[in-house]
Amino acid sequence: MISETETAVQPGSGIGAVIMGHAEALARHTEAPGMMTRTYLTEAHQGAAALLARWMTEAGMHVRRDAAGNVIGRYEGLAPGAPALLTGSHFDTVRNGGKYDGNLGIILPIACVARWHRAGRRFPHAIEIIGFAEEEGVRFKATLLGSRAIAGTFDAGVLERRDDAGISMREAMAAAGFDAAALPAAAYARRDVLAFVEVHIEQGPVLLDEGLPVGVVTAISGASRFMVRATGLAGHAGTVPMDLRRDAAMTAAEIGLYIERRCSGTPGLVGTVGVLEVPNGAANVVPGNAVFTIDIRAEQDPARLAAVADVLCEMQAIAARRNVQLDINQTHDAASVPCAPWLQAQFAAAVTALGMPLRFLPSGAGHDAMAVAALTDVAMLFVRCGNGGISHHPDETMTAEDAEIAADVFSHVVEHFQPQAVAGA
Amino acid sequence: MISETETAVQPGSGIGAVIMGHAEALARHTEAPGMMTRTYLTEAHQGAAALLARWMTEAGMHVRRDAAGNVIGRYEGLAPGAPALLTGSHFDTVRNGGKYDGNLGIILPIACVARWHRAGRRFPHAIEIIGFAEEEGVRFKATLLGSRAIAGTFDAGVLERRDDAGISMREAMAAAGFDAAALPAAAYARRDVLAFVEVHIEQGPVLLDEGLPVGVVTAISGASRFMVRATGLAGHAGTVPMDLRRDAAMTAAEIGLYIERRCSGTPGLVGTVGVLEVPNGAANVVPGNAVFTIDIRAEQDPARLAAVADVLCEMQAIAARRNVQLDINQTHDAASVPCAPWLQAQFAAAVTALGMPLRFLPSGAGHDAMAVAALTDVAMLFVRCGNGGISHHPDETMTAEDAEIAADVFSHVVEHFQPQAVAGA
Repeated sequence: MISETETAVQPGSGIGAVIMGHAEALARHTEAPGMMTRTYLTEAHQGAAALLARWMTEAGMHVRRDAAGNVIGRYEGLAPGAPALLTGSHFDTVRNGGKYDGNLGIILPIACVARWHRAGRRFPHAIEIIGFAEEEGVRFKATLLGSRAIAGTFDAGVLERRDDAGISMREAMAAAGFDAAALPAAAYARRDVLAFVEVHIEQGPVLLDEGLPVGVVTAISGASRFMVRATGLAGHAGTVPMDLRRDAAMTAAEIGLYIERRCSGTPGLVGTVGVLEVPNGAANVVPGNAVFTIDIRAEQDPARLAAVADVLCEMQAIAARRNVQLDINQTHDAASVPCAPWLQAQFAAAVTALGMPLRFLPSGAGHDAMAVAALTDVAMLFVRCGNGGISHHPDETMTAEDAEIAADVFSHVVEHFQPQAVAGA
Repeated sequence: MISETETAVQPGSGIGAVIMGHAEALARHTEAPGMMTRTYLTEAHQGAAALLARWMTEAGMHVRRDAAGNVIGRYEGLAPGAPALLTGSHFDTVRNGGKYDGNLGIILPIACVARWHRAGRRFPHAIEIIGFAEEEGVRFKATLLGSRAIAGTFDAGVLERRDDAGISMREAMAAAGFDAAALPAAAYARRDVLAFVEVHIEQGPVLLDEGLPVGVVTAISGASRFMVRATGLAGHAGTVPMDLRRDAAMTAAEIGLYIERRCSGTPGLVGTVGVLEVPNGAANVVPGNAVFTIDIRAEQDPARLAAVADVLCEMQAIAARRNVQLDINQTHDAASVPCAPWLQAQFAAAVTALGMPLRFLPSGAGHDAMAVAALTDVAMLFVRCGNGGISHHPDETMTAEDAEIAADVFSHVVEHFQPQAVAGA
C-alpha cells in the first residue's frame, strides 16, 4: 500500500504547495523504485489513475474512465449538461522521466476545481479534466493514444502492437478491464465541447532564461526527421593523406554544423543531430561509415520546409565534394498545429491581468493538444522548468511559486471564459 | 595437413608469381577459416613459422628460431661470419587482415635469396631474413615483440600480460617451446649488423594514386593520440532554441573539422577523428555527451607538435564558446623514426637504375623498422597496394608485377650494398 495521507489537499495551504505535493504523491506510482517510469496500463499506471480519480472526486467532480483508460472528471456548470471546456494532459511517463511532464496538466486543474468547489463556484460551462492514459508511446511505440481516443482519431491498427513482453495492446486493455471495441464511443461529440486547453511544463529553457513563470503557446511545431547513413572509404589514419580521404564522419560533422547554422537565427526554427556514430570506429582508422539523424522543427511550416530543402541540398553538395555516398530516409513528417488565436487571447488577457509580462512561444515538443485539435480548438499554457529546462529526465523540476502563478492564470481563463462566437448564431 | 606443393618455388617462373604464390600458401595458416587471422604463438602462427623456415632452408639459408619465436634465416657472405644486412618483417596479422601486411617483407627476400642461391651468388656481407613473430599486438595488447627482442629493447613486464583466455605471454611462450629467460640473448650485437631494411606494402593510397609501384620511405611518422569526452547539456530537440544549446556532438564536429583543416596542406601531416559517438543518442535529444578520438601524425616531429598545440588550443576555444566541458586524455605519444639517409640513397639509386620514377614518402603506420632503429640504421621500401590502399582488411591486395619490381629493387640494393663508412675506419 502506498500512503498518500500526508499529501492530501490541506485546506488553507497555498495552491502551489498543493500541486507540488500531489506531484510527489503521484510520482510514487512508478514501475521502478527510485525512478519515474509509468507506462500504459501497468500496475503503477492503474494506481496513478485511481489516485487521480480520488482527487477528482474530492474536488467535487463526477469521475469516469473511458475505453482508452483515460480518467475523466466533470465539474458541472450552472446548468447540468452544459457544453464543457476541456483541459488535461497525460499521466503516463517516459522511462526514468520527470514528475511534472503531463502530470502537471491534470493535477493543476484538479487543484483549481477543488478551490472552486470549496468556494461553491460554478460557471456557465462545465469543466472536464482529462487524465490522458497514454501520450509518450513507450510501451507500444504508439503515441497520443488517450487524446486520439477522445478526438475520435484512434487508429485501431495499433491495437495489435505488442510490448517487449509480447502482450498486445488489445490484450493489455482487456486485462485492465477496458474494451477496445468501445473505443469509438470514447470520442467526444463536438456539440459538447467548447475548447481544449492544456497546461504543461515548457520542457525547455526559454522561460527560465527570460525569468518568466509562464508563457502562452502559439503553435505546436511541425517536425521533419531523417535517418542518414554516410558511406565513404575506411583507411589507415596514418597512411591516407588528407586529400585522398573519403571520411564519412567528417561528412556527417560538416552536415551537422550546416544544419546548426541554417536553423540558427530564425525564431521557432531548430535543427538537431541527436544520433551521431561511427560504427566500430577505431582511433587509427579513417571512418568509412557514419550514421546520424536530423530533426528539424518550426512553428511555421514554410520555415521548416525551407530549412529542410536547404539542408537536403547542402548535404548532397557536401557529400559530392567529399566523394561520400548518402542514404537518406525520412522517418517523420508532421505539420504545425496552431493554437487558436481566440484562446491565446484569453490566456494573454489572464497573464496581463495578473500583472506579468506576456511571452508567446511555440512548443517544439508534441503534446496531447496536437491530437485534440482534430476535435476542437486548442491552446496551451507553458510553465517554467528549472535545471536549464531539462525534461524526460529525473532532474526535471519546477517551483511551487510557478505552480501557483500557472493555477491563477488557468483559473482566470476559466472564470472569464468566453466561448468562441459562432458565425450567424 | 596443409598441402603446399603447388606453391613451391617453380624454377623458371617469374619471381613476382613466386612471391604471390607464397603469400597464398602462407595465408592458409589462419586461426579462422575464410579469414586471415594469425596471432602470436597460436597453432596457425607456428604453422606459418615452419613454412617460412622450410622456404628459407630451400633458399640455402641456415635457419634458427630465437626466444621470441622469430624465424631467422642466414645466407652467408663470401666469408663466413661476415656482418649481416638484416631484412624482414612480421608474420602475425590482425584479425581478419590481409595476406601481404608483414608477410611480404619475409617472403620477398626469401625469393630473392633463392634466386641468388640458384645462381650461386654470394656477397661481401651476409644476409639475415627475420620473420618477426609478433608486431600487431593483437593477442597480448603489446606490439613489436619480435623486433624489440632482436633490438634488445624487449620489455619483460609484458610477459605477464594475459590473452582473452587468461594465458600469460610467458605461459604461451613456454607452451610453444620458447624460454622467456633467454630473451635477452635474442638481441643482436651491433658489430654483427650492417643495417636493417624492410619491404612492406604501403597500406595507403599514395603510390596507387600516382601510378607508382614502389616508393622509398623517409621516416616512420611520429604520432600523438587523444581520447576526448565532451560534456554539454542534453535537451529536447524541439524545445531548446539554437542559441541556448550546449551541444556536445556539434562541439566534437567543429573540433573534427578544425583538425581536418589544420592537418591539410602540410605534406606528411595527417589528423583523424576515428571514434565519434554520442552515447545513447536519440533523434529528439540535443546531445549532452560525445566521445571522440584524435590521431595526429607527421613525418617531422615539429610539424606534428605544432599541429597538436594548435588543435588543443582551438579545442578549448570551441568548447568555451559552446559552454561545453572537455576531458582530454593523451593515450599515445611517439616521436618520428627517420630512415637513414645513406640507406635511402641506396634504395633511390636502385629505383632509378631500374628506370622508375623516384618517390619518397613517409610511413604513417608503425613498422618493425621502428623498433630495430634502436639497434641499427633502418630503411624501408613501400610497395603499391590495390583497392584504394586498404589494409588490415580482407580486401588488401597487390600485384605480381609490383612484387617483381620490388624484388628487383631489393635485389639491386643488396647486390650493390655499400656499408656506411665508419668515421676513422
